[in-house]
Amino acid sequence: MAKIIRSENYRWDVPLKEYKSDGTGFRDITRQTILGEAEGEERLNFLTRYFEVQPGGYSSLEHHEHPHAVVIIRGEGEVILKDRVEPVGLHDCVYISPHTYHQFHATGAEPLGFLCIVDRERDRPQVPGDTDLENLRKHPDVAKRLRV
Amino acid sequence: MAKIIRSENYRWDVPLKEYKSDGTGFRDITRQTILGEAEGEERLNFLTRYFEVQPGGYSSLEHHEHPHAVVIIRGEGEVILKDRVEPVGLHDCVYISPHTYHQFHATGAEPLGFLCIVDRERDRPQVPGDTDLENLRKHPDVAKRLRV
Repeated sequence: MAKIIRSENYRWDVPLKEYKSDGTGFRDITRQTILGEAEGEERLNFLTRYFEVQPGGYSSLEHHEHPHAVVIIRGEGEVILKDRVEPVGLHDCVYISPHTYHQFHATGAEPLGFLCIVDRERDRPQVPGDTDLENLRKHPDVAKRLRV
Repeated sequence: MAKIIRSENYRWDVPLKEYKSDGTGFRDITRQTILGEAEGEERLNFLTRYFEVQPGGYSSLEHHEHPHAVVIIRGEGEVILKDRVEPVGLHDCVYISPHTYHQFHATGAEPLGFLCIVDRERDRPQVPGDTDLENLRKHPDVAKRLRV
């Protein structure tokens, strides 16, 4: 059934969750699945999630087959995209293509908040081993920014 | 390849299009497909679009099999969802379930802007015939708000 999930101050009336229930390599980040996981939303082939990273925090450095469509809706930050680091700000959209290592960092005074849309059926993220980390660190900007 | 589509004042560096190239029943509305239609984005199974309705404008009253995930990112308005009219404001999320008649109206002084995510492969919208219109108008709030 059609419905409205109302928002107030970057929170929606759905569960606020930990970013991930396992793993390490992330800091001060929360997740809300706004649409796609609740009962009656099974027809949606994609999930609309909101991630919020507190100042100084970051998501995990990872890659996967499924792409991400990200739209920043709060604050500003930097994103590692494989071999480069890019600034992102309000309403910028980030396309994370398959198997691109990526990591979001909240670099401003305000939290960095973004919508991230993904296929409902998707593969699990992979984190870098020593060889991949070594290769990523060959790029000075990436080396300076990444956290594991 | 991973990339950033930068935004400035609710416009992205992609073509700004008419809402629809055919049909009637809409007013003062534009469309930008931020992600999913450009070269190299074929792996995305969904499109991330931005619609902007100028004050007093509205989208077409329609329904279809494919669901919509909508997130308001500018202004405020009202949305017809089948038999009711709901106010929507910043960051509210609207789930348009299959075959729910819907129509967005910009009722404030500022444009109403929203992201709307849909499956890449989807059916065409259907507009109401006389019988459906008659049924929709049985609901006083809907009758007052709808435009065709």
